[in-house]
Amino acid sequence: MIRIAIDAMGGDFGPEPVIEGVVQALEERKFIPILVGDKEEILSFLPPYYVDKVEIVEASDVIDMSDAATDALKRKDSSIYKAVELVREGQADAVMSAGHSGATMTAATLRIGRLPGISKPGLATLMPSIGKHKTLVLDVGSVTDCKPQNLYEFGAMGEAYAEKILGISSPTVGLLSNGSEDSKGNELTKATFPLLKNLKGFIGNVEGKDIFNGKVNVIVCDGFTGNILLKTSEGVVATVFDLMKQYIRKSLPAKIGAFMMKKKVFVNMKKQIDKDEYGGAPLLGLKGCAIISHGASSPKAIKNAIFQAIRYVESDVNTTIEKRLSEGN
Amino acid sequence: MIRIAIDAMGGDFGPEPVIEGVVQALEERKFIPILVGDKEEILSFLPPYYVDKVEIVEASDVIDMSDAATDALKRKDSSIYKAVELVREGQADAVMSAGHSGATMTAATLRIGRLPGISKPGLATLMPSIGKHKTLVLDVGSVTDCKPQNLYEFGAMGEAYAEKILGISSPTVGLLSNGSEDSKGNELTKATFPLLKNLKGFIGNVEGKDIFNGKVNVIVCDGFTGNILLKTSEGVVATVFDLMKQYIRKSLPAKIGAFMMKKKVFVNMKKQIDKDEYGGAPLLGLKGCAIISHGASSPKAIKNAIFQAIRYVESDVNTTIEKRLSEGN
Repeated sequence: MIRIAIDAMGGDFGPEPVIEGVVQALEERKFIPILVGDKEEILSFLPPYYVDKVEIVEASDVIDMSDAATDALKRKDSSIYKAVELVREGQADAVMSAGHSGATMTAATLRIGRLPGISKPGLATLMPSIGKHKTLVLDVGSVTDCKPQNLYEFGAMGEAYAEKILGISSPTVGLLSNGSEDSKGNELTKATFPLLKNLKGFIGNVEGKDIFNGKVNVIVCDGFTGNILLKTSEGVVATVFDLMKQYIRKSLPAKIGAFMMKKKVFVNMKKQIDKDEYGGAPLLGLKGCAIISHGASSPKAIKNAIFQAIRYVESDVNTTIEKRLSEGN
Repeated sequence: MIRIAIDAMGGDFGPEPVIEGVVQALEERKFIPILVGDKEEILSFLPPYYVDKVEIVEASDVIDMSDAATDALKRKDSSIYKAVELVREGQADAVMSAGHSGATMTAATLRIGRLPGISKPGLATLMPSIGKHKTLVLDVGSVTDCKPQNLYEFGAMGEAYAEKILGISSPTVGLLSNGSEDSKGNELTKATFPLLKNLKGFIGNVEGKDIFNGKVNVIVCDGFTGNILLKTSEGVVATVFDLMKQYIRKSLPAKIGAFMMKKKVFVNMKKQIDKDEYGGAPLLGLKGCAIISHGASSPKAIKNAIFQAIRYVESDVNTTIEKRLSEGN
């Protein structure tokens, strides 16, 4: 059975939502969660029925959001370090953490190691789209200053992930740029463009709006730009709904109207754009599987991140990534 | 009276919306529009009452959206070139074009020239915010590959613009980064950070979400990132409303609800986030004033771009920019 190491202490709200998410996941799927953290605290949140359905690995230290990412390598009693080590030692198939994402990425990259042909792993996230599939964007925060080779590898890994995990038979890959014409781009993307032509699914430059309109399945960018576009998108969505609420509050007919729209419109929309539905972001390019979840993850987000880890392991996407990169170069 | 050179031929829909926008502007404010383009075509769209309220400068050539930006310098009979020349020659106080934006920026930069202390002009745009003021973001497309000095100048110019034109007494300036901590950033922003400390209003790094939440008045970024975040934001807004319409169409109660929300919610929201309200984007750093409008500008957007040009000229923001940069360095 698939074994998933879970950093039980990470996340903005401590172990409670993480453990509740694990319980919700266990209600739907069979797998072995290995909860890493303070055993007493973990047991205090774990319903008795589930005590013999999990394994617990004691870790006395927690890396805080204000600590440096490199602390993950020095503080060997931390829940992140110990959870990552379980994958390294073959005792777990995947690791999932909603804790310090930089620390998790650093520990996973250096302790689990990279696949052959990968210079740096890339963090991939699914974004909502009105197309048939969600859009996979990478890198969204692993490599701040990229070289063309990094972006090429992100493209190859994204293509493999879209095929194997999202089930898209011939996924398309676009290079995020400041215009869709081939001539557009900055120095980095212009140097990347010819490399990406080696990918079967490469369709050229794409723009910010193409994340959402279903034009392309995989979008490649550097981690600085990716992080900014992710936070910008979240900001826009939050602002649109904040504004709407402000105006609704001021008018009785609007209040009634909003009530009538709630079930069929707002609930469905929330479901479609809610990031909790996506779970976490896989760090692609590792000799293993690491899923990085948002610090503010709800139990539902944790559950979905676990399901993502299970799909990752079952699909054997890493073999596909390795194969693609050995062919492409 | 303020004289504004207007590229009457630019824009995705030809002269009609441009001239209609000029007429709408004349109904509200006194100024002299100098319409540059095909005289016969211009007169065919201009209501007779307005014929003696405008000047017309004949231009036989139009730079198309598919032409190269540098064509603007070679094709001296084009409406963009001739409109820009009117500012250079002192016959107009400002130029406004909804045509090829790269061509307009190139012509304006090289023919009108830069203010002392400015290495490259920056394109600034206002973004919606739930704060008291809209947020000024620059650069959104003038300089694709920036040096730290470019970003510093954008900050100084944005600060001056926010003070003089937006009327904010002590505007705050943030550097767009992949996290708000001082240590965050890519090579470019890390090298820019100490330079921006010379600005009175600098508050450090800001994130994508801070564009909309009212945290900061001016956000500085390179033109590649700025262009992507602009198009991403537009894409998110369009997608949210597309999705909403899709769900509304499927349910009768939702249709009625949406109707009840229309006047007090959707109309007000549209007004608040509609880019037509903002007019155009000023190209800051010129020895003059150039307003770049969206190719798909409606008459209302053209009208607001003209008002922006009038405010720009009246406020004498260029003197403030010059002063700031000579103090700062």
